[in-house]
Amino acid sequence: MTGDLDLAEGAARVARPDEAVSLDELQLAARNHGLPLEALRYDVTPVGLHYLLVHYDIPDVDPDAWRLAVGGAVSRPVTLDLDDVRARPATTARVTIECAGNGRARLLPRPVSQPWLTEAVGTAEWTGTPLAPLLDELGVGDDAVAVGFRGADHGVERGVEQDYERGLSLDDARTGDLLLAYEMNGQPLPPQHGAPLRLVAPGWYGMAHVKWLTHIEVLTEPFAGFQNDTAYRLTQAEGDAGEPVTRMRPRALMSPPGFPDFMTRTRVVDVGDHELRGRAWSGGGPVRRVEVSADDGRTWADAELAPATSRWAWQAWRYRWRADTPGRTTLCCRATDESGEVQPVEQPWNRQGMANNLVQRIPVLVRQR
Amino acid sequence: MTGDLDLAEGAARVARPDEAVSLDELQLAARNHGLPLEALRYDVTPVGLHYLLVHYDIPDVDPDAWRLAVGGAVSRPVTLDLDDVRARPATTARVTIECAGNGRARLLPRPVSQPWLTEAVGTAEWTGTPLAPLLDELGVGDDAVAVGFRGADHGVERGVEQDYERGLSLDDARTGDLLLAYEMNGQPLPPQHGAPLRLVAPGWYGMAHVKWLTHIEVLTEPFAGFQNDTAYRLTQAEGDAGEPVTRMRPRALMSPPGFPDFMTRTRVVDVGDHELRGRAWSGGGPVRRVEVSADDGRTWADAELAPATSRWAWQAWRYRWRADTPGRTTLCCRATDESGEVQPVEQPWNRQGMANNLVQRIPVLVRQR
Repeated sequence: MTGDLDLAEGAARVARPDEAVSLDELQLAARNHGLPLEALRYDVTPVGLHYLLVHYDIPDVDPDAWRLAVGGAVSRPVTLDLDDVRARPATTARVTIECAGNGRARLLPRPVSQPWLTEAVGTAEWTGTPLAPLLDELGVGDDAVAVGFRGADHGVERGVEQDYERGLSLDDARTGDLLLAYEMNGQPLPPQHGAPLRLVAPGWYGMAHVKWLTHIEVLTEPFAGFQNDTAYRLTQAEGDAGEPVTRMRPRALMSPPGFPDFMTRTRVVDVGDHELRGRAWSGGGPVRRVEVSADDGRTWADAELAPATSRWAWQAWRYRWRADTPGRTTLCCRATDESGEVQPVEQPWNRQGMANNLVQRIPVLVRQR
Repeated sequence: MTGDLDLAEGAARVARPDEAVSLDELQLAARNHGLPLEALRYDVTPVGLHYLLVHYDIPDVDPDAWRLAVGGAVSRPVTLDLDDVRARPATTARVTIECAGNGRARLLPRPVSQPWLTEAVGTAEWTGTPLAPLLDELGVGDDAVAVGFRGADHGVERGVEQDYERGLSLDDARTGDLLLAYEMNGQPLPPQHGAPLRLVAPGWYGMAHVKWLTHIEVLTEPFAGFQNDTAYRLTQAEGDAGEPVTRMRPRALMSPPGFPDFMTRTRVVDVGDHELRGRAWSGGGPVRRVEVSADDGRTWADAELAPATSRWAWQAWRYRWRADTPGRTTLCCRATDESGEVQPVEQPWNRQGMANNLVQRIPVLVRQR
């Protein structure tokens, strides 16, 4: 079936040094969208401002006809409709999700894919039923080692026709507060965020949070689908198997101060005191430190960091900045999580542009009023 | 105050023939977003899928502190809070809005600005109070000729610092079902669509629908702000005053059939019969005809066109297509409105890339199963 689909090279492509953004990349940027950075002001991101990445098309799922099949290496496989899922114990979790490709388009050379700059993130209140008790009820076999999650999003990627599908180890699926979510911010899931049901996998990059979920299969072998074994990998060279992309690396983002120039997004601020604000998160545990640089990363000072409002949500930070020299400068911020991992000032390049947490840089024009 | 802001050239820029999309354009594409074309399936676009263009930043408006000042050449100027607006007669209108810059990034040479391809459109149910009766109650002066609408969105554009502001002739402001809207699809306006109040100007391109509205001023001279006299113009050469951008030109869009290749968005369809579906609209009156081409615009056939579900909303169309030859082709569609205006197959270029309604082209790979 896929033999006809001579649509794309087999490997991820890296742009030539002189190659600017293509119309193919721009098509993806126009469909998908980031969090406008001023929306970092909201503890919970309003619907429509949360980042969105759809691999193929938003599927046309009829919620009445929709079913979730849970099977594989379990004693009692089941098929659930939406009422069945809603009748189960419910919980609400505030979770920050970032796309694994965030920052890709700023890498040199640039991996050719969805061209994120720094804005592919959001925080929502997800309501649904916990996954672990459901698996326990169905009787997971002693030989089970992994769980596959399949969505209704259908397309072809590097010549491979597929429904979007991701796997987790059984340990990761059973621990970590995974949720089968049917509400976002207290409303039914919007179509683009996975209606009627999606997986939420707190702490993981977005690729693990399978949308438009239709099948969960408990496996006796590690999951070996395209999105785990080919797409979301940290590789340095073509053909390199690399390492899997897993949990979010620490990152801080700043809500850009002042006001913007339309075309360049350069910020204009007046000479004087400014409170810089932003958010920071990590899938590796709480953020312990946020630092700010007002001189493009040469010197750093500690910001004031608030505790998280939930275990899996971003933390607010603020920093009092005195802008005393008219002219241009660049503001930066960086996070350190409890494991001691700190965001890099030099780019951590890989050929698919994954899990890159290079510090944000905000060009600012300080003016004397 | 603006003399310091050496941020951009005075005129809109056109890309060099060999110049690809820049990171500046990409930043705008990542913030703003189009309608994913498969979302043409919804009569009313769900929140988060409607196209969004924010000139500067989404402002941080406290709805309790917010006020709307209505003044200028009226006998009884007023300042309204949100309860005052909500206490007025309410109406709900289903309105299709398209960005005047839609299609810009496909023009050759490419005007450098928000780089839309074909997807900057959406249809929402806007609830609010009609503008015309409010103006009548306040006693519009006999010498009044225009109305200015100012929003809270603040920035600098081509060196000019400004709140986003647009004007309409008094005739256009009084007729045409203009609405001061505080709900979108039955919910309070989301921040990005103008909370707490925006103007909805049915039939006009998006630039007229001022978001985060704070001031309405009745004028005794034609409105002469930046967005009317400089930004939204149809010009052929730098310095040319040109013509104003006003109402939406006819356009049809197709919901792409089959399924997509991730990177190129090329569609894969099987040999056989397919029902192609889409929407069509015009600010110049009802659409009277939609045609489809399955051979890249060489031959055309009539689609079946449904009447509009409201005076100001898009119309659904469908077309039975027999894909009988395996291989690549390009699907197109075009609308003709009641004035007889038909979408062009050759680009209608202007140097700011405004009001361009070049036909959509969808690359398709037909496969033999």
